[in-house]
Amino acid sequence: MTIPLGPGAEFDLIRSLVERWGPRARGIGDDAAVFRPTRGDSIVASVDASVEGRHFDSAWLSPREIGYRAVTAALSDLAAMGARPRGILVAIALSENWQHKLLNIANGIGDAVDAAQTVILGGNLSAARELSFTTTVFGEAFEPLRRSGAMPGDRVYVPGRLGGVGEALRRLKAGESAAHLRERFAKPTARLEEGRWLAGAGVNAAIDISDGLVADLRHLAAASAVDIEISADRIVLMPGTDIEGALVSGEEYELAVTSPKTIDLRAFETAFGIPLTEIGRVIARGTGNVGVIGARVAARAGHDHFSR
Amino acid sequence: MTIPLGPGAEFDLIRSLVERWGPRARGIGDDAAVFRPTRGDSIVASVDASVEGRHFDSAWLSPREIGYRAVTAALSDLAAMGARPRGILVAIALSENWQHKLLNIANGIGDAVDAAQTVILGGNLSAARELSFTTTVFGEAFEPLRRSGAMPGDRVYVPGRLGGVGEALRRLKAGESAAHLRERFAKPTARLEEGRWLAGAGVNAAIDISDGLVADLRHLAAASAVDIEISADRIVLMPGTDIEGALVSGEEYELAVTSPKTIDLRAFETAFGIPLTEIGRVIARGTGNVGVIGARVAARAGHDHFSR
Repeated sequence: MTIPLGPGAEFDLIRSLVERWGPRARGIGDDAAVFRPTRGDSIVASVDASVEGRHFDSAWLSPREIGYRAVTAALSDLAAMGARPRGILVAIALSENWQHKLLNIANGIGDAVDAAQTVILGGNLSAARELSFTTTVFGEAFEPLRRSGAMPGDRVYVPGRLGGVGEALRRLKAGESAAHLRERFAKPTARLEEGRWLAGAGVNAAIDISDGLVADLRHLAAASAVDIEISADRIVLMPGTDIEGALVSGEEYELAVTSPKTIDLRAFETAFGIPLTEIGRVIARGTGNVGVIGARVAARAGHDHFSR
Repeated sequence: MTIPLGPGAEFDLIRSLVERWGPRARGIGDDAAVFRPTRGDSIVASVDASVEGRHFDSAWLSPREIGYRAVTAALSDLAAMGARPRGILVAIALSENWQHKLLNIANGIGDAVDAAQTVILGGNLSAARELSFTTTVFGEAFEPLRRSGAMPGDRVYVPGRLGGVGEALRRLKAGESAAHLRERFAKPTARLEEGRWLAGAGVNAAIDISDGLVADLRHLAAASAVDIEISADRIVLMPGTDIEGALVSGEEYELAVTSPKTIDLRAFETAFGIPLTEIGRVIARGTGNVGVIGARVAARAGHDHFSR
């Protein structure tokens, strides 16, 4: 089995795992796993890890925000599948210095669960040397949205305003105030209702922006065996950010979708209070290339835990 | 919501989390979470973490065995629910010193998946300071077996031979050879088919033995609001072990079940090639006490990651 992921050392490692597993590994490469119970709708599930010092820095976030973000990141994968959340499992690896903050973290997990109108179905608590969360989310969908459904001629859409998270991180790393961008970084939203709305509006492929717009569009393009072209000047930016940053800004948890039909942008904005923007086209069958008109992008743009 | 768990610092922490979450946390306290899709069978899911230095020691196990055990421990929770596995998600937190052994670990994960006749549906790979696995397992069941179904008068049954894992660990820690007991420790079996057979035979409550027989029976008794009495001399031991060790031997991944009906022991042994033993009774409604006739057991027998 070949898994249709974009480039990067992290994905090379994942590919080597999936090769090793052979036919035991099925349907890898989407935002979430899908299985159809013997009777009933498809179950959509995803797991996401959040490790201290890799995915979050406790100098920049409160314990409550750390809990909130860990769960929201996982729920965002359900949004990208057009699935309705039915519950989460939270595995917490707790280092000794975090034990007294556990209930603050729990509050943040509760906030995320409330925002997604779902529940906590179980979990695991173990001692460890570093704090980490591994969140499994479950949802259901009659017809889950895949990464692999994009076709030549489709329009590419992105909801929301990009760049805020990357710029907030840049400022925090530089010791500056993140100001109005802090909220985008500390309190992202999983676009769950938006994802289901878009699925209903005829979208044929979707991904959430966790590694950065260009990196994630490459994943979608690779999964769909197409090439994509987007226009930098179409992308709606958060005030105080620039396009070069917005193209690679990770952990946005906005969606990127493709659609063979024109989507009613005004209806989307009326329903959700955020813009939906057409940023480009699927230009041809291909091998996962993403061209950006009007901006320079590094060949390997995006976050990669295993790059050197 | 009160969660019916036995005593221990780890469970105190879990209780404090669930209290904090209030009505957002549902059905916590079983081996696995259950939700019923809008249409269809119940989905049973569980998450289990395995952290280097806490749950396994690389001096005693090969990378392949480490991968196998991490996944088998999670699958064992499905066995205790009488569920049929439908897939797993594997989240691997990979420290740098383990990167070159990743494919050996993958082989072990593959072995566990093969043994359970299931598939890998997805996962997560992240960099971390210590190696850990967080495995989510999914199954389905028309009527999942809970911990909470035991009633006064029920018989208590345990399949297999106990004590081997605890004794193997004792010998390894003492620098001795674990000899024939090593296999029980390094290559445990998730009793999946046995669990479904027992569910079909009329069992009304079940748990898997991960913390030790007495500790896990206390969880089951607490969840069912009953007291249990078992006889030490009924318990079938692995050769080379003793009863005191067998009562607290963790990570056995055998099952402990209760049944209002007498179960056909010979039919079980014929089907699976291991003994099934009646070891005691649910004696009354109660508060989760477990008495052992013929052996001394510590009040807080069992493994607890957060005890001091």
